[in-house]
Amino acid sequence: MTTLFDQTIPQFSKMLGNLDAWLGAAVALAEQKKFSPDVIANSRLAADMFTLIQQVQSACDAAKYAGAYMSGTTPPSHPDTETTMVELRARIATVRAHLETVTRESCAGAEERKVSPPWLHGAWLTGADYITQVAIPNFYFHVVTAYDILRHNGVALGKQAFIGAMPVHT
Amino acid sequence: MTTLFDQTIPQFSKMLGNLDAWLGAAVALAEQKKFSPDVIANSRLAADMFTLIQQVQSACDAAKYAGAYMSGTTPPSHPDTETTMVELRARIATVRAHLETVTRESCAGAEERKVSPPWLHGAWLTGADYITQVAIPNFYFHVVTAYDILRHNGVALGKQAFIGAMPVHT
Repeated sequence: MTTLFDQTIPQFSKMLGNLDAWLGAAVALAEQKKFSPDVIANSRLAADMFTLIQQVQSACDAAKYAGAYMSGTTPPSHPDTETTMVELRARIATVRAHLETVTRESCAGAEERKVSPPWLHGAWLTGADYITQVAIPNFYFHVVTAYDILRHNGVALGKQAFIGAMPVHT
Repeated sequence: MTTLFDQTIPQFSKMLGNLDAWLGAAVALAEQKKFSPDVIANSRLAADMFTLIQQVQSACDAAKYAGAYMSGTTPPSHPDTETTMVELRARIATVRAHLETVTRESCAGAEERKVSPPWLHGAWLTGADYITQVAIPNFYFHVVTAYDILRHNGVALGKQAFIGAMPVHT
């Protein structure tokens, strides 16, 4: 049976790897067009939306907190200090390494766990509802918006780069 | 135990309901600013990306096909004929009504089912891999990009409008 862990941690890590590759494509475009890649890093789709830097930081946090809430642990602190593409890609690598330490076993019982993030002010969601209705949509919100900022700035990406590798059988 | 059905169909329907509300906010902005809402309906974030109309159609199809592949059924045909916000919102209502007919029981065994969409040219994914690695990311890709197009065009939405209602306990 697929568990909440299977639905999230390995897939979130894969998507963060895809995101890293998209940032690599942005850096390559910047080199080719002779502009600083950090122009794109500071781009946003609306004045009151997050920059690419903030979208990547938020995607990393969404993945990290999903693991923490499923396993009832406190995640490592990753201050939002990144200002460059190089630092952003290092943040992704750090979070992906951390996600390797989150195991199916450590997330046992996640479905019924009470999840009470600070922004719920003491109220709580079941682990299952938190993952399905908050963690997954919020993670993809930031990953897709990062993708959209890159595409809006001319980085050549397509649906295959978005989805990434698939475990196909023949 | 949460099933693949629980992870997708009710949540996809909720998100499509959220999307419908965002389109309503776009229509209200257009009325206030005296432009046609169909200007936004035909907006896109890059010349080689889908328009809002196409993003909404694709989100509807992603939800519909997830149900079809999980239950081994052929989904109803919904030709992509919409050109206006009114028609788009009707498409969403049609798909949400269809999703009501997809049940947990009809999706029993979905995890091990062979899913072989035409674009895999005869190859296949397990139902579990298809849902986690294709259906969910692809659904959110189109929903979030629709949201991003709306925000880029000045529609006032926030994270709460994105996530929608949550089954909180106190």
